[in-house]
Amino acid sequence: MAAMFKQLGLIGCGLMGGSFALALKQAGLVERVIGYSKSPSTTEKAKQMGVIDQVAESALLAVSGADIVLLAVPVAATDSTLRAIRHLVAPNVLFMDVGSTKRDVVDAARRVLKDKVGAFVPAHPIAGKELSGVQHADALLFKDRLTILTPITQTDPELVEKARLVWVAMGSDVRVMTPEAHDAAFAAVSHLPHLLAFAYFTGILQQKESEQFLALAGPGFRDFTRIAASDPAIWRDILIANREEVLKQSERFRGALQVLEQVLADCKGESLEALVRGVSQARSHWRMGALTRHQ
Amino acid sequence: MAAMFKQLGLIGCGLMGGSFALALKQAGLVERVIGYSKSPSTTEKAKQMGVIDQVAESALLAVSGADIVLLAVPVAATDSTLRAIRHLVAPNVLFMDVGSTKRDVVDAARRVLKDKVGAFVPAHPIAGKELSGVQHADALLFKDRLTILTPITQTDPELVEKARLVWVAMGSDVRVMTPEAHDAAFAAVSHLPHLLAFAYFTGILQQKESEQFLALAGPGFRDFTRIAASDPAIWRDILIANREEVLKQSERFRGALQVLEQVLADCKGESLEALVRGVSQARSHWRMGALTRHQ
Repeated sequence: MAAMFKQLGLIGCGLMGGSFALALKQAGLVERVIGYSKSPSTTEKAKQMGVIDQVAESALLAVSGADIVLLAVPVAATDSTLRAIRHLVAPNVLFMDVGSTKRDVVDAARRVLKDKVGAFVPAHPIAGKELSGVQHADALLFKDRLTILTPITQTDPELVEKARLVWVAMGSDVRVMTPEAHDAAFAAVSHLPHLLAFAYFTGILQQKESEQFLALAGPGFRDFTRIAASDPAIWRDILIANREEVLKQSERFRGALQVLEQVLADCKGESLEALVRGVSQARSHWRMGALTRHQ
Repeated sequence: MAAMFKQLGLIGCGLMGGSFALALKQAGLVERVIGYSKSPSTTEKAKQMGVIDQVAESALLAVSGADIVLLAVPVAATDSTLRAIRHLVAPNVLFMDVGSTKRDVVDAARRVLKDKVGAFVPAHPIAGKELSGVQHADALLFKDRLTILTPITQTDPELVEKARLVWVAMGSDVRVMTPEAHDAAFAAVSHLPHLLAFAYFTGILQQKESEQFLALAGPGFRDFTRIAASDPAIWRDILIANREEVLKQSERFRGALQVLEQVLADCKGESLEALVRGVSQARSHWRMGALTRHQ
């Protein structure tokens, strides 16, 4: 049986792009992968690892001849990347991204692709590691994870369906939402936790006892701060792109923190216990989205 | 060879106490364990599981005949528990607790035990789970974890050494510090993260979209909020007991958050990236205390 796609044009060969290429290959959905990356050493490594079959000298050359294209670049680079490839955007080719914010990506796609925007299916796989780089690429990265598609009115429904099949074939559970609902939700459940982890770790580092403190930290600290090790360029872009929603969520968080601080300052044990009990129960019952149906 | 101890008197048969009993048995350090718990169903379960060999009808009866005693009760119950057993506190018996705060525990011990306070070696194993209860007790809970001892001037040095041997036999790496230094450090690396996780999760639950939000949350959220599922009574006591240090740390955190929020509001990508880069590098190089020497 012929593969669904003849050629993947991969723009950006980092953790996400590399994992997508590996997963697409492993699912038997693609015959070959042509990859472009800003850094030649990255594409070289990707080729050595079998993530891509051939190196493209430019983003445009990566798209040439492809029937599926993945933009896996920091979200702030979406605009310039789309500009570089727009002449080869065609209605029968599936274009996707993997950005963690969607309003800015959709805005860039509308602005740059104009009447060809229908070929672009914005995607956000809820997967990742605190480690970046193609050396951590993993064909199973998207398995048992959610992937959100945020098509707009102009998006070709057949390409949305094709995109859905691709992510499902990689083991993802696919949801469709608007870019706005996506960005509001991920400000709450992903972007704010990153901001808080960055702020918390900064607060520790600023103390003269930070080394002794860090030497004493245990498993709770380890898990709470895991996301503080995330890639700075990627998170700069995400937080800046979605700053309005993130700041709204942060304000809400500060309100909740203030209540807890007041209860503590007033030494109100019962109120504190009741507050913590509600949270503790809710967190104990929570299960990761894509996994609930298997449990 | 005879075991180091003939009888452990265990007061409080939850996760920590139960794990201590199992670990002490597994290390071959004790011949039998007599356990007391406020709830008869807990001691019954502990006996069925082989965590304790015999049920004591009171804390005092658990201490009777023991040559090692562990108080594994919520820190706020330390005072009343010590009062219940003080008549059997003797200089040749090792008394320890496992509380996550130490100044309040030491204060209670001074107040209640008076001239017998030297028998009490305050201990804090940096181990735990977000699950409580004897059913989660685990002989390996303290393995490859730090345990902090916080003796005071009056503490018998021979008992401190005995305590050290006990924890080392369970696989712990033991450090000695003052109760004050302990509480300041753990406010920073443990108590504040719990407070922030509680506040963050509260902020999510307060939103009308919380269910949709929670259904979309991924692995970053999972790890960041794991400690939000912690036991409400235990964390009420810890946060109240150490509230001064916790509130100091929280203020410092709010300062760091404010800087990040300002940078975001001003859309200063470069400053944001520089801040995140510093944190990300520091977190990437961090390793959990007790493990560093094995790596």
